[in-house]
Amino acid sequence: MPYFDAASAAPLHPVARQALLASLDEGWADPARLYREGRRARLLLDAAREAAAEAVGCRPDELVFTPSGTRAVHAGISGSLAGRRRVGNRIVVSAVEHSSVLHAAESHAAAGGAVTEVPVGRTGAVDADVFAAALDAGAGGDAGTAALACLQSANHEVGTEQPVAEVAEACRAAGVPLLVDAAQSLGWGPVEGGWSLLAASAHKWGGPAGVGLLAVRKGVRFAPQGPSDERESGRAPGFENLPAIVAAAASLRAVRAEAAAEGARLRALVDRIRARVPELVPDVEVVGDPVRRLPHLVTFSCLYVDGETLLHELDREGFSVSSGSSCTSSTLTPSHVLRAMGVLSEGNVRVSLPAGTAEEDVDRFLDVLPVVVAGVRERLGAPATSPAAAAGPDSLVVDALGRRCPIPVIELAKVIGDVPVGGTVTVLADDAAARLDIPAWCEMRRQEYVGESPAAGGGVAYVVRRVN
Amino acid sequence: MPYFDAASAAPLHPVARQALLASLDEGWADPARLYREGRRARLLLDAAREAAAEAVGCRPDELVFTPSGTRAVHAGISGSLAGRRRVGNRIVVSAVEHSSVLHAAESHAAAGGAVTEVPVGRTGAVDADVFAAALDAGAGGDAGTAALACLQSANHEVGTEQPVAEVAEACRAAGVPLLVDAAQSLGWGPVEGGWSLLAASAHKWGGPAGVGLLAVRKGVRFAPQGPSDERESGRAPGFENLPAIVAAAASLRAVRAEAAAEGARLRALVDRIRARVPELVPDVEVVGDPVRRLPHLVTFSCLYVDGETLLHELDREGFSVSSGSSCTSSTLTPSHVLRAMGVLSEGNVRVSLPAGTAEEDVDRFLDVLPVVVAGVRERLGAPATSPAAAAGPDSLVVDALGRRCPIPVIELAKVIGDVPVGGTVTVLADDAAARLDIPAWCEMRRQEYVGESPAAGGGVAYVVRRVN
Repeated sequence: MPYFDAASAAPLHPVARQALLASLDEGWADPARLYREGRRARLLLDAAREAAAEAVGCRPDELVFTPSGTRAVHAGISGSLAGRRRVGNRIVVSAVEHSSVLHAAESHAAAGGAVTEVPVGRTGAVDADVFAAALDAGAGGDAGTAALACLQSANHEVGTEQPVAEVAEACRAAGVPLLVDAAQSLGWGPVEGGWSLLAASAHKWGGPAGVGLLAVRKGVRFAPQGPSDERESGRAPGFENLPAIVAAAASLRAVRAEAAAEGARLRALVDRIRARVPELVPDVEVVGDPVRRLPHLVTFSCLYVDGETLLHELDREGFSVSSGSSCTSSTLTPSHVLRAMGVLSEGNVRVSLPAGTAEEDVDRFLDVLPVVVAGVRERLGAPATSPAAAAGPDSLVVDALGRRCPIPVIELAKVIGDVPVGGTVTVLADDAAARLDIPAWCEMRRQEYVGESPAAGGGVAYVVRRVN
Repeated sequence: MPYFDAASAAPLHPVARQALLASLDEGWADPARLYREGRRARLLLDAAREAAAEAVGCRPDELVFTPSGTRAVHAGISGSLAGRRRVGNRIVVSAVEHSSVLHAAESHAAAGGAVTEVPVGRTGAVDADVFAAALDAGAGGDAGTAALACLQSANHEVGTEQPVAEVAEACRAAGVPLLVDAAQSLGWGPVEGGWSLLAASAHKWGGPAGVGLLAVRKGVRFAPQGPSDERESGRAPGFENLPAIVAAAASLRAVRAEAAAEGARLRALVDRIRARVPELVPDVEVVGDPVRRLPHLVTFSCLYVDGETLLHELDREGFSVSSGSSCTSSTLTPSHVLRAMGVLSEGNVRVSLPAGTAEEDVDRFLDVLPVVVAGVRERLGAPATSPAAAAGPDSLVVDALGRRCPIPVIELAKVIGDVPVGGTVTVLADDAAARLDIPAWCEMRRQEYVGESPAAGGGVAYVVRRVN
């Protein structure tokens, strides 16, 4: 039963399991105590910190263990913003950061701080020059000097690597600390460049749940927020999750030892998916950078497909994948990453291969996917690829109010052939995905997206001109 | 090798180990995902929440899992203070709460909030009427209405149970929510009374590290602080520490099943220690309530003994215990609990027996302790019990500036016989423990403690009158 959602949580690495078991017996006591059980726990904690610091590329006293990657991000952002309060009150983030970063930025804004969001291109990467420009005091308008910048090492939804080293250099030149969310990449290698803070999460590399890392370089101003606590240099309150910390450090070392070979193998499998999916499935957009990307992750969107049904059908066939479609989330909005990239969100599938994924399983996925997509499309009454010859009036209005993705796009596609070339179709819709998916459909179909305006009866009117 | 520090961290219960192992295979995936691995994880999480809620005595949807007891306390306090911001800005805490509660209160004060600390008596318990009075709007002076009250179920250093049910009733009458820190007692039984919030920590009952509980009763105003997150009802951000959560819930159920029998057995062993230590070791003060107490915990202080040396010697003999003496901590101040109780802090030893402690180990401890204490006293040059007949001048000054506990008290005891009955000894000291231990010595020796004043050359002058 192939599990293809390593980017959510990787199955526990055998070394993590082994280290966890061993340290359950040796590492349950309080490492702050001086008796033998405490000293043993302290030795394990110190060794884990050294191993993790070596893998991160920092000094052991620069690294603390947190209860999760999310908590590492929250603590890193709040601590460095507080440490630089006198310098400025603005945080600069890319538009495609993990929700933990964006939520921390929202929380900063709610407390009166300023946030600058750096846009990304169609591959999901920021432009280093655009990021650098956002660091300028003038870039924030009245908001002023940037106190902190945040950029992920690689995107969690589409796998695109960010130009971290160049952005770090720009941050250094501007005197702004850079926090790198390395959650998706740390198992594959250290983050290059002169970052100031780094956060990561053990369960993403095959370590156990309950462990994150926060590294804060010496010299970076940092004032931990929240109630004080003596553990983990005052940066992560609460009793240390020691056996899990030991397992996290041991498995990071183990996955790193395998990273070059396994990365190359998975990269080839992902290349195969990237090449074959558009050949096997009509009307698919493969997104993310084809080269500058994580080795194990690929994302594509299928026109005229309901993401939730697609995931359900794939699950029935034994494949566990995730999706950034709004139709699979409870928020009714498509993934902020796909939105920032301006790519199709309907029928979105993220495949992230865990270490050890068998080639046969990937091939079987490529066999199953076209059948499943065709089945979903048939049930939804998705139209054929090419519009019929012109027939009807010069303009048509399609009322898709109250209908969820992918229906508004399907209704558009059904009638585009009814207007002559030069004619328009107006789609009335109130589903948030339409704003992303109607322009994306136009791009894929080479039709002209004219624009949107508020609809009289509520919702939005999206206008499309038939040009072929 | 007997480990007698269960109040710091209990050794992992066999059921916790077993549940942890089983759920490493079944519970590593993201419980928010809809594929089979995610659904399996969700089932485990839901079952753990139901089991824990049953043990706590609340509804499953009132309980969330946090990364530690400390984080549960922090989240509980900040969330309920924020939820009641419009009502008031004052928190009422007992003087002997765990540092996680007191640090959260300090953090509240630093942000402009008010804190009322309710004193305790010599056994370490608050008086319910005194606590109730502190809830009154007038009690805070200008600080006004109480927004939240915090009271532990039982004290972590001396084992004394607090009158939680009575205080909960007073809180209900005053319309103030009560947060109970049940970290030390939850393994022994549910907290009685109408509390509003409850926090606990799994590694205190034999569960794994990395898991705390926070229960918030329906109807309690609660506004989670910090960046938002969808997990755990928005009250505990970050990926769930699932295998550990499963182990925590399973072991709570297991220790509860054993609690009545094991509690009675340990209570008898602790009674033996409470009775025998003062018989075997001269000049000892056993502290805490002898009856209304945790079954497994006893604390005593030994006059003229350096706590750090004592712990070291006991460790060499194979006994792991902890201490609230300032001479064993890095803060140079004695435990805030002993200070609030007004009892002797030097030579302090806390014995907390884990489940399954063998009777023979307790007996061997009682054999070893007198020898160890006598050895430490001999090396420190501690004086004999009774002062010699009067001999010297009417008043003496002892300069113990720069000397750490227990030296100032030892120097006092050495010369008290040199002044006649009615004469005074003035001890100059700058060690924080002297403020607690010199009056405590007077009480034990039935001498008169006259008072303190600032000393000319820095430090404090403590005046003692010989009355026998």
